[in-house]
Order: sequence, then structure tokens, then C-alpha cells
Amino acid sequence: MLVVLVGTAAVAVAATGLGRSDDGDRKAQNVILFIGDGMGDSELTAARDYEHGTDGSFPGIDALPHVGRFTPHSLTTSGEPDYVADSAATATAWSSGIKTYDGAIGVDVDGEAHPTLLELAKKKGLKTGNVTTAAIQDATPAALMAHVSDRDCQDPDETADSCPENALENGGEGSISEQLMVTRPDVVLGGGFEIFDEEEAESGEYAGVTLLDQAEQRGFQVVQDAEALAEVDSATQKKPLLGLFSDKHMPVSWVGPKATLDGGTTPPVRCEVNEDRSSFDPTLKQMTEKALELLDGDQGFFLQVESASIDKSGHDANACGQIGETIELDEAVQAARAFAKKDGNTTILVTADHAQSSQIVQAGLNTRGLTASLLTNEGAPLTLSYATGKKGVKQAHSGASVPISAEGPGAAAVKDLQEQTELFGLISSLLGLDKSS
Amino acid sequence: MLVVLVGTAAVAVAATGLGRSDDGDRKAQNVILFIGDGMGDSELTAARDYEHGTDGSFPGIDALPHVGRFTPHSLTTSGEPDYVADSAATATAWSSGIKTYDGAIGVDVDGEAHPTLLELAKKKGLKTGNVTTAAIQDATPAALMAHVSDRDCQDPDETADSCPENALENGGEGSISEQLMVTRPDVVLGGGFEIFDEEEAESGEYAGVTLLDQAEQRGFQVVQDAEALAEVDSATQKKPLLGLFSDKHMPVSWVGPKATLDGGTTPPVRCEVNEDRSSFDPTLKQMTEKALELLDGDQGFFLQVESASIDKSGHDANACGQIGETIELDEAVQAARAFAKKDGNTTILVTADHAQSSQIVQAGLNTRGLTASLLTNEGAPLTLSYATGKKGVKQAHSGASVPISAEGPGAAAVKDLQEQTELFGLISSLLGLDKSS
Repeated sequence: MLVVLVGTAAVAVAATGLGRSDDGDRKAQNVILFIGDGMGDSELTAARDYEHGTDGSFPGIDALPHVGRFTPHSLTTSGEPDYVADSAATATAWSSGIKTYDGAIGVDVDGEAHPTLLELAKKKGLKTGNVTTAAIQDATPAALMAHVSDRDCQDPDETADSCPENALENGGEGSISEQLMVTRPDVVLGGGFEIFDEEEAESGEYAGVTLLDQAEQRGFQVVQDAEALAEVDSATQKKPLLGLFSDKHMPVSWVGPKATLDGGTTPPVRCEVNEDRSSFDPTLKQMTEKALELLDGDQGFFLQVESASIDKSGHDANACGQIGETIELDEAVQAARAFAKKDGNTTILVTADHAQSSQIVQAGLNTRGLTASLLTNEGAPLTLSYATGKKGVKQAHSGASVPISAEGPGAAAVKDLQEQTELFGLISSLLGLDKSS
Repeated sequence: MLVVLVGTAAVAVAATGLGRSDDGDRKAQNVILFIGDGMGDSELTAARDYEHGTDGSFPGIDALPHVGRFTPHSLTTSGEPDYVADSAATATAWSSGIKTYDGAIGVDVDGEAHPTLLELAKKKGLKTGNVTTAAIQDATPAALMAHVSDRDCQDPDETADSCPENALENGGEGSISEQLMVTRPDVVLGGGFEIFDEEEAESGEYAGVTLLDQAEQRGFQVVQDAEALAEVDSATQKKPLLGLFSDKHMPVSWVGPKATLDGGTTPPVRCEVNEDRSSFDPTLKQMTEKALELLDGDQGFFLQVESASIDKSGHDANACGQIGETIELDEAVQAARAFAKKDGNTTILVTADHAQSSQIVQAGLNTRGLTASLLTNEGAPLTLSYATGKKGVKQAHSGASVPISAEGPGAAAVKDLQEQTELFGLISSLLGLDKSS
């Protein structure tokens, strides 16, 4: 086996994708990056088919005028090519511009930390936001705020076990939750309350104090439901906003039939609203709108918004969960487009970190895997197949390239095939970030 | 079930995709359309990973500067939405600009024939070519030259059985093979010799004469191997070129391990050259280059080039076949780019008719389906899964949207999501075809 990417290639910062078109070198005051976790073309098409039909398109995502492709690849821990990446490696790719191993958060294959888009934006004086429907310690949001050797190191206990070199008590920077408070974005919204409520620092000034108390002592405004979120009217470095709306991941918007071995031949049914989600749970659109309200200003901002449970539903062969969370993302994109239209100096990027392995197959087909038959809004049967996870095993990621679409200053640079690491260069250039820092 | 697309929508000619950008209304003298049959993003990525690695790209396909997406949908025979189309319905979509049912060649759900790009190009006085690695009666090439109610109606006997209304003896236009000779493109290259050699017309001037003799009596130059092809120095309406290089489909370029239930965990191996393909079999690149040589001139031309066995290999869970034919397509695209660069007035479009259901999964994973582990050029393991066909059943198409890339005059119109039927409008506008005829 050739080891072709160890060393310089593994830590090389990608070249910018800019400068390829007339408006490619324009700068944006604000950048909003949407990540559909596990949202490959198959997942996007399934949600589009269900909601908007054969002649329809997403009012948000599909309306962005510039489209391209990203190839999400990672490395093995020994630096060999890995054609199917996880969300940690891919988030590190777009957030820090480096290829790394699956599970790595903001560090390369040698364990070296690389600055993230959010850290560089803060350093330049921009406001920053990080929004997700997952626990805010989950891989995608974590890779903007933390540097740990394993994505599981979300709290002090697990960090001591799995990432001892990162533990505070060993002179490290601490768990993902602890690093979040040091990186201190102006706005952080998502799930992940349980860790803050139950875990304590093992060392330093806040030893023996819960992370929740630590956050409050550090000046964070902590909110736990949609009502409290709606009431927040400012988020600054003095008083940043930390929204923790669920113990772990936030509930998905839709529920539906479990995919089964003969699901293809069962009568197609409609997805339904998840009754476990209440008005106390903010939607991704509500979180996005609040973040935009709080970040808007003369400084400019960088905001990341993730719809995380497209991927989690895909792993669980949960067709309606997957489709509903894709539509949630589109609704958040629509809100961002309304902001950008008014603002005039905001670039919106929508992409996926990697693809999932759900597939749209001929209506009524049973495959080797699990299938679910849905009835779309236009009244036709839509059959999805999940066949990469053996019995009792979760469905797997796909290594297919993923779509990116863009609108706003510099968006014309998005038009062809690029390595995912180039997204770091593109956003750095749009915001004028100093990558050498 | 709602019937939403019967009637006007089902036969509506798509609006052009042009006029959306500054050079969107430019005209091209020549258009070359490449179809990768069953070449979704998963299939494209697998071939790219194998051949060019994580940092590489296709020198042909990936070099085209404008990219977009097409949604390939078809209809049921009763006009309801069908989210997973076959090659007949999709070819009719891009060739005639109409949505139709799976299996239909150049006709709508009511059986009405609609003119094809090739027919309209001929009518305008352009030269025309139709190249494929399949039998030239196969769905994709057929939908440029014929109008029959079922893709199986490739010869007179089958037409009498499956498409009686199309049979010559019933006053129809005849089988696909017979309509080919009437439509009379300047250049037709592919497989499909057996039907010409063995079948006879059932009625009319050529009744009782083999189709091969008929072709010769009608003035076609018939060639059967690469050497004879190389010697052809002109193809005109007086003496069109008909290349029939295989009895049925042409042999694929690569062979490799059969995908099996535990293929993911077997040691990765290299694809190998198919020894059943000899120097008598022209490559897709050779056919493309000869077609370009023969079509080039002041009249302008429309040429379609299909790599057909990406799809056929996908159906057979044949990973190396699929990858090799994708690379064959890229080599043909490279030849076309060399021509276009010299010519300066040629637009190249590369797309797929629909996606297949092969998937790139984590190296070493066994899925619910068949898997094959390959060793890529950069020395890393690449595992492909085929899991939509139950035991003894072929793998199925995927309904995911497909990529399109473009270069040349008017190519900037390719940049977002469009219905596949809009490809008809795009090429019609580029070549100034009269769609009302």
C-alpha cells in the first residue's frame, strides 16, 4: 500500500477556489455556511421529490444560482487515502482546510491543531455564530470551536479516557465543551444540555463546577427553549449566547414508517409531524433567524448552520426523518436568503459534509436492504432503500461527491469540481481572513 | 392517486434553459452531447477515485467549466409521476423534450411521436451523428432516430409482437433498425450487427431482404471493425456510414472481480484489461474521433456519443466494467475537447440519462448486498456496494439527480437545477433548431 499523503500533503492548506471568474475576487461582509449533514444528491432529490414533486424545486437551496461539486475525502490515521469520510474529518477539511483522519476535530494526522474559520473570523474582529440541530459538541459544530484528537471527547471525563493529551489536567485545552467556552463564539445554538448540566472541569479555575455554572460565570447567556431564545436581544463577546435546547440532539421534525425488508411493497404512506417536538424546541429556521438578528452589524460575521439529523436519520434508515430535516434546512436557507437580499453584502453557501447511502428506487421495489414507501405531495409513490447496514448495524456513509450551491459576492467561484478543503480557502478569501495566523 | 401530469404537461415541450447569462444566447455551429448511461455522481466519483485518486480529476469531464444538475423523471403509462426513469424515457426527455413512460422511444404517453434533436438538426441542414458502445438499436441511440411504443421493438419480428401499430405491415414506420435507415444520420456507430444480419423487413420495397442488404441498397457504407472504420474518409447523405462492430453490445474495456456477499472484506485487487476486446473493436474515443472527422464542415453538426455500459455494468454489479466505461467516456470527451479547441465554435455537453445504484462505502465493509474491493491507482482500497437487486435480480436504477457539465458557446446556461427535458430546449437553441416542425 502506498503512503502518498503523509506529511506536507496531509497538512497542506488548500488553495483558494477564488479568482476564477470576474466577480470571484469580491469580498463579502458576511458569510453564512449551511451544512446538510449526510445530504448527498440522493438525499436532496428524495426530499425534493417528496415535497415539491417532479416539476418542483427547493425555494431556498435550488434557487442559489451557482452550483459545483466537492469531493469529501479523508485519510487513515497513517495518512493513506480514505474514500469515505466521517463528519469530523470533513468538518475539519472545510473548517481548517486540511485533510485528516475520521474522528479528528481540528487536528491533522500528526495531532497538530489548525485554526478554524470561526477562530480566524473572530481574530479579524467579525462576529461569529455556530448553529446546529445536533448536540453543540457534535462533530460538525465542534470542528469550528475545538481541537481534539477524537470526536467523542465532548466532556472532561471522556476526554480523560479518549484524548488524554487534550485533557485540562494534563495541560491540554480541554474537552469540546470546555474549548467552546474559550473560543467563545457570539452565538452557539443547538442541543447538548446534558453534558453542561452534569459534567465538571477536572482542573483549573472552574474545577468542581458544572460546565453550565462555568458558562454562566464566564458571562454566557444560557437559554433552554424557544421562548427564551426569542427574548434575547443581543449577543456580544461580553455576553455571548449559548442555547442548549435538548439534552443531546434536538428532535427531528417528521416521523414516518420504519424501513423494513419488504417496505417497498407496502402501500405508500405520508410522513407525519413529530409530536415529540413542541413549541419549546426552536426550529432550525428560528435559530437561524435569531442568529442573523444578533450577528448583523458593521463588523460583519461568519455563521455556520447545520441540519445534522439528515445524516442521523439516514444512519437509522428513517426516511421521513431524513426528508423532514432536509426541508428544515431549506426553510433556514430561505430565511438566510431573505436576510441577504435585504443586506446586499452576504454570501450564502449550501453544501453537505458527505453523502449518506439512502437511495431512491423504482416504486414498489424490495431491495437487499430495508425499504420504505412514501406518498409524495403530488400523490405518487416514492420508495427509498437503505441497504449498506447489515442486520443490527447502522447504514453507512457514501463516498459520492456532494453538491454545493452559492449566492452573493464571490459566489461565482462555485462552479466546478473542487476538493472539500478548498471551501476553507473560499470562505477565508471572501472574508479576508489571515490564514497564516 | 392523483393524476397530475396527463395531457398538456405530459407533452409540453420544455422551456429553453438559455438566456440566463450573458453568453447564454450565443449560438454554436456544432454540438457534441455525451451521455454516460447510468452515470450518477456515485459512479463518476468511483471511477475518479480509482483512476485519479483523492486529489485528482478527470482531464475531460471535470475540466468543463460549467456544471449543473438534471432531474430525470418519467411518467407511468397512465401519466402519473415516476421518480425513477429508464433510459428510454430519459432519452426521449432530452431528445424530444417530453416526459414519457419507461420504455417509450420518441413517443409520449398518448403514443404521439415528437421530433428528435437529430431529426430537427437534419431538417435544418446540419450533419448528424449517433455513436454508442451499445447496440445502435438500444434505447439511448434509438430515441434520436426512431419512434416506437416499446424499446424492445428493435427488429421487424419483435415490432410485430410488441409494437404492432409501429410495424411496417400495419402501416407503421417500422422497427428501430428500419427507422434508423429512414432517419439516415450521416454517421451511426455502435453494436447491433446481428439484427441487421438476420432480420428482414416484413413489408414494402425491401420485404424479404435482410436489413443489412437493405442498408447497402440504400447507399449506407457498412463497416464492421476498427480497421475498416479508420479507412472511411467521408460520410454524406448519399453515402452515410453505418458501423456495426458487435453482434449486440460492444465489449467493455475492463474486467475485474465479481461482487459478492463478502467482497468488502476480501483483499482489494486491480481491474484488468478485457482480453475479449481486440484491436478490431474501436474504442469510444476512436469512434468519436472518426465521427468528428466525418461531420466537421461548414454545415455544422449535432453528434451524440453514449458510453452505454456504465449502466449495463452497474446492473450486473460489475465494478471494473462500470469504472472502465466511465474512463472510456472521459477519453472520448478529451478527444472532443481537442476538436473543440481547434474548431472554436463547438459546444460540448456531458451528462447522464439517470443514475445507477452502485455506492462507495467504507473500505472493507460488507453491506446487505454485493461488494467488491478494488485497489486504486494511488494504492488505496475502494469498496463498492451493489444492494438494490435481490438474489438473481439485476441492480436497479437510482432516482438521484444527475450532473451535467458544459463548455463552449452558450455553455454558461448550464449552472443550476433543471428538468431533464430542458436539455432539448438548450441544444435546440444552441443550434437554432425549429422546434415547431
